[in-house]
Amino acid sequence: MSRQSFDPATLTYNDAGLIPAIAQDVTTGEVLMMAWMNADSIARTLETGKVTYWSRSRQAFWIKGETSGHVQELVDFRFDCDSDCLLVVVNQTGPACHTGRQSCFYRAVRGGDVIELEAAP
Amino acid sequence: MSRQSFDPATLTYNDAGLIPAIAQDVTTGEVLMMAWMNADSIARTLETGKVTYWSRSRQAFWIKGETSGHVQELVDFRFDCDSDCLLVVVNQTGPACHTGRQSCFYRAVRGGDVIELEAAP
Repeated sequence: MSRQSFDPATLTYNDAGLIPAIAQDVTTGEVLMMAWMNADSIARTLETGKVTYWSRSRQAFWIKGETSGHVQELVDFRFDCDSDCLLVVVNQTGPACHTGRQSCFYRAVRGGDVIELEAAP
Repeated sequence: MSRQSFDPATLTYNDAGLIPAIAQDVTTGEVLMMAWMNADSIARTLETGKVTYWSRSRQAFWIKGETSGHVQELVDFRFDCDSDCLLVVVNQTGPACHTGRQSCFYRAVRGGDVIELEAAP
């Protein structure tokens, strides 16, 4: 098991300075959502333990659940072999999706049709 | 449970015509990797049941495991609330990562250090 100091600058960001972050529920293993982080939101996430994305629409930090209360407490912060994708393992309070569903991935394609796996609350 | 015919054109792609696709192991729930698809690779994935990405470096279809044998058999194809991210639930043969590790997300940041969760084989 190798060990070295982590520097967010060593990750690979896209032209907008962003890297995709997948959130996974530590309890259920469910993939909850995917959003984007920049180097500063990564640093804030690690410092505060509150998962903090970068909102592309608002061009601002997005502390997940700050207004809804559906916060994501960071359990583990991982990154992939190419250093261009993040996986945050979280304790999710309430639903992760803005539609009120537990996961944003509530639709599936089966037999050519779109199926809703979880109804809107 | 609502039902409608699926059309890959209804998804939201980036400027390069790509959409991120997260692969999750159906058996373990482990998040294996993230890669990219375009509309054609989505259609091929659904038609063949073999998860087929779009290689940005080679600018070509990338049937996962075609050369390595580490194929991903599609179990379920899902997409998120914003229709701009995919989740493919798969039967993974062998390791998903090109480094030989089961998952590409084999590094974690803990206490400011980078830890390898799985050693190179």
